[in-house]
Amino acid sequence: MSARTTQLRLARRPQGFPDEHTWEVTETEVPSPAQGQFVVAVDHISLEPAMRGWIRDVRSYWPPVGIGEVMRAHATGTVTESRHSGYAVGDAVSGHFGVAEHALSDGNGVVRIDTGLAGPPTWLGALGLPGMTAWFGLFDVGRIQHGETVVVSGAAGAVGSVVGQLAKARGCRVVGIAGGPKKCAWLKEIGFDEAIDYKAHDPLKQLQEAVPEGIDVFFDNVGGGILDAGLANLRRGARVVICGAVANYNAEKPEGPRRLMSLIVCRASMTGFLVLDYEDRYPEAIEGISEMIHSGRLQARETVVSGGVQAFPEALLGLFRGINTGKLVLEV
Amino acid sequence: MSARTTQLRLARRPQGFPDEHTWEVTETEVPSPAQGQFVVAVDHISLEPAMRGWIRDVRSYWPPVGIGEVMRAHATGTVTESRHSGYAVGDAVSGHFGVAEHALSDGNGVVRIDTGLAGPPTWLGALGLPGMTAWFGLFDVGRIQHGETVVVSGAAGAVGSVVGQLAKARGCRVVGIAGGPKKCAWLKEIGFDEAIDYKAHDPLKQLQEAVPEGIDVFFDNVGGGILDAGLANLRRGARVVICGAVANYNAEKPEGPRRLMSLIVCRASMTGFLVLDYEDRYPEAIEGISEMIHSGRLQARETVVSGGVQAFPEALLGLFRGINTGKLVLEV
Repeated sequence: MSARTTQLRLARRPQGFPDEHTWEVTETEVPSPAQGQFVVAVDHISLEPAMRGWIRDVRSYWPPVGIGEVMRAHATGTVTESRHSGYAVGDAVSGHFGVAEHALSDGNGVVRIDTGLAGPPTWLGALGLPGMTAWFGLFDVGRIQHGETVVVSGAAGAVGSVVGQLAKARGCRVVGIAGGPKKCAWLKEIGFDEAIDYKAHDPLKQLQEAVPEGIDVFFDNVGGGILDAGLANLRRGARVVICGAVANYNAEKPEGPRRLMSLIVCRASMTGFLVLDYEDRYPEAIEGISEMIHSGRLQARETVVSGGVQAFPEALLGLFRGINTGKLVLEV
Repeated sequence: MSARTTQLRLARRPQGFPDEHTWEVTETEVPSPAQGQFVVAVDHISLEPAMRGWIRDVRSYWPPVGIGEVMRAHATGTVTESRHSGYAVGDAVSGHFGVAEHALSDGNGVVRIDTGLAGPPTWLGALGLPGMTAWFGLFDVGRIQHGETVVVSGAAGAVGSVVGQLAKARGCRVVGIAGGPKKCAWLKEIGFDEAIDYKAHDPLKQLQEAVPEGIDVFFDNVGGGILDAGLANLRRGARVVICGAVANYNAEKPEGPRRLMSLIVCRASMTGFLVLDYEDRYPEAIEGISEMIHSGRLQARETVVSGGVQAFPEALLGLFRGINTGKLVLEV
């Protein structure tokens, strides 16, 4: 008799926010590896804003998750059975294992993680793709220089909190934009020079007061009105790094920034990027960030919710409501 | 008894399109030059979309034109009286002479023009700031490469028509977006590979058909929905050059591009620039463009309207209605 295992599948493409009709929980047998494959027992699943894009039926950097397919997700886990020469039972790994208790893998895109260095949730956060995104977005796309003013939106999130700490370590003045006094207090705690609560007052005015010198690098995770507030406060030669636009992900008609003329007046640029393009250089970022974690110069924080794959739909909505400080992770 | 001369002054800041209350025609004596000054009799005045910004009371690259001041304008003319060692009576010049029949100048920002090489209107067009804008926007900001696909909006305008011809000369495939069949026919005539009439059909769909390979460089003069159509058709690594956003210049609440996620998916950038930053290098562009005019590889075209400074208000509205093919110039 084989053991059973649970997955979450895409049942229907949502309009606006995903709801109870979007997902379907299914049960199968735990898969058996063919030659060159191994099985992973998933322990933590990453929740990320980009997931809303993955279930949208449009051309993007990845094909959309198909109806009936297991929802795509980064996750960590342990190898429980292996017919792959590179992976042995007991190995701790991360990869695209999906929203599932068990996954079959051929090792493609799988990374071995050192759980002695940091727990699995951190390998989905500061030492995972969010950390890589912060590193390459800030250094390669934003090209920050010592002494510059850096503003980051979604600052208390998985990417933003690393962005701010990396920029501080490089000698920048750092202002974070986040939602709510608790998140803002945390930002000050981890070294941000200023924290703006966009829910409390008009972010545009707050930003004007916080950066009278103007912004050199605006690292945007949010889009919409927050991006406009940034554009209104650029300094000459500013770089706007477009990392995400979470404000628009559930909108059927996203709102664009109205202040594009700032790009002309400030001779500024706005650049999008995908962390996947930097895959060859992840080791450089992992080394840099783990060194900072160990020396206490970077705080890696995660919000871990429990409930297993069945709890994924609610956790994803929580992400868009901003329940998390740092990386949001689902424990399986 | 001194001679009289006419100017057009800003009387009131408009909401939306400028109207009859915006301007005031005044008459003064023809000015007399002090030591180090000279007087220019203006013959042609440039009309440009940026003028709408110059009369807006906001921080920009130049201070706004003040109420009661002569309207700022580039113009050409002839020196009629001089106490400046560098300029003699009869010299043909261009500069910021304003919407006026006569201007007093100390030579600051004044360029000597060779009317044997091309008539004064061309010195406000392909050999003036629009030509410089096309040159540096395309080569320095857009960094076009041989064989790339270049799309330009406002393609039949002063800047766009030069952009397209320069890109063709560098071996690019060039698609222009313009309003109306006459302009589109002219674009084909001057060598554009395709011309899209945005008034005839949905520009987004037309663009999809015209550039199945995707856009490498989108040179945007228009903004709004046209910019969105461009963003929807970018190729990986695309550069969007933000030169202007004429669709928004008279709007109190400009519309932003909704498809910013394309910047992420395509790892693309959007960059604003001001031609003024390239002033030191104008001679390089003037040399390149005049050589092309003379060898017949670039057609410089102007639409010249008459009526003198009194006709400026109507001519400016005409610019926003798109009455011009090539550069719009007012004859004094």
